[in-house]
Amino acid sequence: VDSPEAIEALERAGHPFHTWLKIDCGYHRAGVEPTAPAALELARRLAASPTLVFDGLLTHSGHAYHGRNPDEIRTVAEAERRAVAEFRTRLAAEGIAVAASVGSTPAMAVVTSLEGVQEARPGNYAFYDADQVALGSCSLADCAVTVLASVVSAPPGARHAVVDAGALALSKDAGHPGPDQAMGRIYDDYERGTLRTDARLGPLSQEHGIVSAPLPVGTRVRILPNHSCLTVACFDEYHVVDGDRVVDRWKIWRGR
Amino acid sequence: VDSPEAIEALERAGHPFHTWLKIDCGYHRAGVEPTAPAALELARRLAASPTLVFDGLLTHSGHAYHGRNPDEIRTVAEAERRAVAEFRTRLAAEGIAVAASVGSTPAMAVVTSLEGVQEARPGNYAFYDADQVALGSCSLADCAVTVLASVVSAPPGARHAVVDAGALALSKDAGHPGPDQAMGRIYDDYERGTLRTDARLGPLSQEHGIVSAPLPVGTRVRILPNHSCLTVACFDEYHVVDGDRVVDRWKIWRGR
Repeated sequence: VDSPEAIEALERAGHPFHTWLKIDCGYHRAGVEPTAPAALELARRLAASPTLVFDGLLTHSGHAYHGRNPDEIRTVAEAERRAVAEFRTRLAAEGIAVAASVGSTPAMAVVTSLEGVQEARPGNYAFYDADQVALGSCSLADCAVTVLASVVSAPPGARHAVVDAGALALSKDAGHPGPDQAMGRIYDDYERGTLRTDARLGPLSQEHGIVSAPLPVGTRVRILPNHSCLTVACFDEYHVVDGDRVVDRWKIWRGR
Repeated sequence: VDSPEAIEALERAGHPFHTWLKIDCGYHRAGVEPTAPAALELARRLAASPTLVFDGLLTHSGHAYHGRNPDEIRTVAEAERRAVAEFRTRLAAEGIAVAASVGSTPAMAVVTSLEGVQEARPGNYAFYDADQVALGSCSLADCAVTVLASVVSAPPGARHAVVDAGALALSKDAGHPGPDQAMGRIYDDYERGTLRTDARLGPLSQEHGIVSAPLPVGTRVRILPNHSCLTVACFDEYHVVDGDRVVDRWKIWRGR
């Protein structure tokens, strides 16, 4: 929560919700500025709530995704840490003891100190993806989720092929901007962590993807998605593989 | 299918699949050119298949989405009809009797003749969406699926609000290009079919959407998506409403 209205709405529900005060650490999407009087008022309000449990201070450095190099992202990560850690210390001096939680995958990949912070939430870290490689959060070898697709059409004379994976399999995240921008990348060898340089995924239709090379019909391709979070939300289960062997299936708890 | 390889793969499976020959009517994504010798060869191959059932000729005018006005789209629709209807007549003269199937929502919205065609597949027609309004396929009053969201944050001093519907609720279709481009539109009055002109959906994060006006926390907004097909695939069920009353729930058979 970051407003009296949201606190009141939760209180009206009459349930002892575990509640976090959202702090703005520079992303400017949501949250209260931690040095503003409103932040202290809301924290006191939560601490004194007859129904809610005040668990902590939560922030998200979404602007780390706009960092152009590790130094810029590290500056964001440190500002994020300071925003909640210092406010947490001020609250402690008033006898309000709560946790501080930070997190974005790019920031957590380069952060040097988490002093005064009790929780980090780098959500994309579980799988990583092409965007995180572009941001420098990880290497290609760290990426742990791919989409397997088949070439279903390669019209004679055309310079492309069509695979049976479109926006309903990969989501429609346009990916990290740059000369290398694509809707998905195709592995040359997943185990070695190498991508094909001659073929990538171009425009995505709903059910189909266009590959920028005339691969033969029947070719199976393993695709690295731009944004693994949105991609896995397209599926009902993971196929857990060891090499080419499916060793397990895990249900994906998606759905709204 | 549009290749010998795909036909052979289906035959190897040994099942009497009902099979359609994909025809390219100008979209140039997949399919065979109906006047090319390869088209006739594939049709004969399917008709003579020992296992497959040759049901018909299928095409898709995806390029109708690039039409700038109803006349341009109508020209695409007529070329689409002709591509399959004429080829179907040629096959009939050889004793190969199959159906012809066309379809894209923009083309079917303006088509004047379906002579020689047995099936039309305007898939988006079930709900329509903001893109189809922009293309002229329908009016705003025809749009039949919306996403209900709540304003969860409206930071003091900010000129935006945050709703609890992001890319996981709306998909991430950038929408029809133009000065009015947005990630979603907010109804002023759904029953009257009017949109708010002061607020629309700006960038979408994974779980959050940014509204371009500081609506109060707790405000409920009804959002018209850009692309209803991708949007409904984010949900497990429809809430069927009559005015403000939920009168039924329908399971959405999504999933891969």
